[in-house]
Amino acid sequence: METPATPDIPIRSLSEEIAAGDGARCKACIEGADRLEAVRALSRLTDDERETLLALLDPEDAAEVIEQIPDVQAVDAMEGLEPEKAARILEEFPSDEQADLLNELDQEDADAILDELTPEDAASIRNLSAYDESVAGGLMATEFLAFAKQMTVADVLRDLEKHAQHYERFNIQYSYVVEEDGALVGVLRMRSLLLARRDKTLAELMIADPIRVHDLMPMDELVALFRDNSYIGLPVVDPLNRLVGVIERSDIEHALREDADEQYRASLGIVGGEEIRTMPLRTRSTRRLAWLSINIVLNVLAASVIAFHQDTLQAVIALAVFLPIISDMSGCSGNQAVAVSMRELTLGVARPRDLLRVLGKEASVGIINGIVLGLLIGLVAYLWKGNAFLGVVVGGALALNTLLAVSIGGAVPLILKGFKLDPALASGPILTTITDMCGFFLVLTFASMFLARLI
Amino acid sequence: METPATPDIPIRSLSEEIAAGDGARCKACIEGADRLEAVRALSRLTDDERETLLALLDPEDAAEVIEQIPDVQAVDAMEGLEPEKAARILEEFPSDEQADLLNELDQEDADAILDELTPEDAASIRNLSAYDESVAGGLMATEFLAFAKQMTVADVLRDLEKHAQHYERFNIQYSYVVEEDGALVGVLRMRSLLLARRDKTLAELMIADPIRVHDLMPMDELVALFRDNSYIGLPVVDPLNRLVGVIERSDIEHALREDADEQYRASLGIVGGEEIRTMPLRTRSTRRLAWLSINIVLNVLAASVIAFHQDTLQAVIALAVFLPIISDMSGCSGNQAVAVSMRELTLGVARPRDLLRVLGKEASVGIINGIVLGLLIGLVAYLWKGNAFLGVVVGGALALNTLLAVSIGGAVPLILKGFKLDPALASGPILTTITDMCGFFLVLTFASMFLARLI
Repeated sequence: METPATPDIPIRSLSEEIAAGDGARCKACIEGADRLEAVRALSRLTDDERETLLALLDPEDAAEVIEQIPDVQAVDAMEGLEPEKAARILEEFPSDEQADLLNELDQEDADAILDELTPEDAASIRNLSAYDESVAGGLMATEFLAFAKQMTVADVLRDLEKHAQHYERFNIQYSYVVEEDGALVGVLRMRSLLLARRDKTLAELMIADPIRVHDLMPMDELVALFRDNSYIGLPVVDPLNRLVGVIERSDIEHALREDADEQYRASLGIVGGEEIRTMPLRTRSTRRLAWLSINIVLNVLAASVIAFHQDTLQAVIALAVFLPIISDMSGCSGNQAVAVSMRELTLGVARPRDLLRVLGKEASVGIINGIVLGLLIGLVAYLWKGNAFLGVVVGGALALNTLLAVSIGGAVPLILKGFKLDPALASGPILTTITDMCGFFLVLTFASMFLARLI
Repeated sequence: METPATPDIPIRSLSEEIAAGDGARCKACIEGADRLEAVRALSRLTDDERETLLALLDPEDAAEVIEQIPDVQAVDAMEGLEPEKAARILEEFPSDEQADLLNELDQEDADAILDELTPEDAASIRNLSAYDESVAGGLMATEFLAFAKQMTVADVLRDLEKHAQHYERFNIQYSYVVEEDGALVGVLRMRSLLLARRDKTLAELMIADPIRVHDLMPMDELVALFRDNSYIGLPVVDPLNRLVGVIERSDIEHALREDADEQYRASLGIVGGEEIRTMPLRTRSTRRLAWLSINIVLNVLAASVIAFHQDTLQAVIALAVFLPIISDMSGCSGNQAVAVSMRELTLGVARPRDLLRVLGKEASVGIINGIVLGLLIGLVAYLWKGNAFLGVVVGGALALNTLLAVSIGGAVPLILKGFKLDPALASGPILTTITDMCGFFLVLTFASMFLARLI
């Protein structure tokens, strides 16, 4: 258990301590606080305060602060620091997180920081950054134990002891066995070393030809691999079978979680990255507006259908009450189908080419739910105005539009995915625009057919 | 690398092989297929086929199938099996997954399966099941290495060798050191054993008084703890400081991902558990309808505001075009604020008591975005009808309603969380009902004020 060298300072004084410029007191402040309190306090500093804080702390403590605050704030703060200081902080992270952080920075800032690292470290990070984040190479860490196959157990134990400090941050479950050119030939559980005679070579002890993944293996295959097996970690090799990294179960879980978070944000219209309320008002407002302005255009487009049928509406003004209901309910029904398709895509149980099967499955739900919802709203319309034809018009339109909405909602994510577009982002607006237009068209067309009975 | 004993059988014949009742051929079928192909084929069997398949396979292979299919299907299949067979399959999983699976089953089925386990296993699972899923006890595994502190390195190595097979499935990074009553007193990295003299006792080698978590530590604190530190796993203790389990980084990531998935589903109206399209039509339809029927009531409630202002609408029929636009746009703006609040709650940077701060932050965005969107829609209205007052009425209503929507959207998740309700589920419907009512009210009230200028 760590004991702060300085007496406890309440976390609420953090801003003052930063202004006073005393790194030790800032550290005491943060370490003295309950963890969640510290997260809140750190995330609520101004951007300038966070930069000053990181500059005041030594790299190790600064790295801990970086880990605690939301990613977007961490990136801003790193960009504000002197490249030399940022490089020292970066060195505290494992290689995969280094690459992730640098990928988020402006290219210019990232290059300046890379210049401050040793050439080998910089090259290694550049290699990692070149991988897409959704393949094994982009998820792996480059900290692993690898020993030549002719080494003996005694050699390995000596090496472990000698470099114990360097290996400190490694997540060691296995030791990998390689040829001279770095080609992976075996794996050795650490516990096998424990029980082995000291003069055995690794080649004698290792499990030869171990399971490995290629650096370009996509996320969904990695997910399936880790789901089906209880691997803690797997070696990653390049096309020449050279060991380039290790991918762990928690890396996969972490990546999946980030995907789920992004899906959630995108579905509610937070795009262009995460938003935290301490971000500048201008950034928050313009990012949200970018999304809203597309939506308003789509909305005007959809509502123009109503404008073309104004006469019908004028004659049966009661319909105006039902237009927003039909728009909203169809959106709800369609979004449910979007959610199911998105999940099936993530789980790997549906692919773009399953479009017809999905349409069939959704149509059955659409027919039942359409009839139920149509009857409900039709009944409301009938009871309100005592006109059965109003009920038929409104109910019939909602029933048909529900069928349409769930079919479109189920199909759109698969189609977008098929065209390599982001379904979480675009499915919602596409869905609601089409269902609004169709819904308005159906109500007003049915109404004009029965106009004599409705007035 | 495993080689199937039977020649390759294409995965598309899986249903036929199940019908033929040949377990070995079913197994060859699944193992011969690409992993994603297998997931899809398994998840598309009928419920009966999946049950038969699990009954045909030996427990180890059946457990692998269970791991591959979506959770909801796994639970259904387990419920359909003989309790004795289900128990043998269950034994293949680590303790935390056993408890999770049993928690999903009907109480009756779960009890029948527990009766088939050894009394110790059953008691251990019952203990785990008693924990809430969002505390350390509900996330931990009970497979860990623990040795008495007076044991020597040689004792431990002998034990490891002797029970190697039993420990096979353990995720071993650390060995824990305990008193005779099970109280945790130290931790030992496996690599320290490697380098230690064989006659040392664990008490001499261990790191004393290690970081530990209490079995009731809530999720958000665990998340902060693992985020701030690079622990691979932490020991979990009960109130008497007895070691009861181990919680790993991947357990936390996994739980967070499930939360994010559920948030996403709930926000789009898939409630009452995950939906996979192979589930019975009736289940899918009724679950979705349960959610939609609440929505339709709320929609009718909101639209009733229009009914009260029919005269105004009759006089200025152009307004009917803008009602759905205002309803939808306010919903979009409000949902963005909901998404940000939900994320801030998850990240731990906002709590229910931060309501006023959140309201302030959202109001600033609301004023800017309200003015921009109001101007846009006002311009559209003016250009369409050439009436500036129509623009003022529609634009003013949207501007005000946007301010209202983002404030409500930001506040509702915090308020629901404060009352221990699920914000992901209820925020959307509450938000849109209020903003629809206010939006309709604002447009129609403004219109009635300027009625003479609008006609």
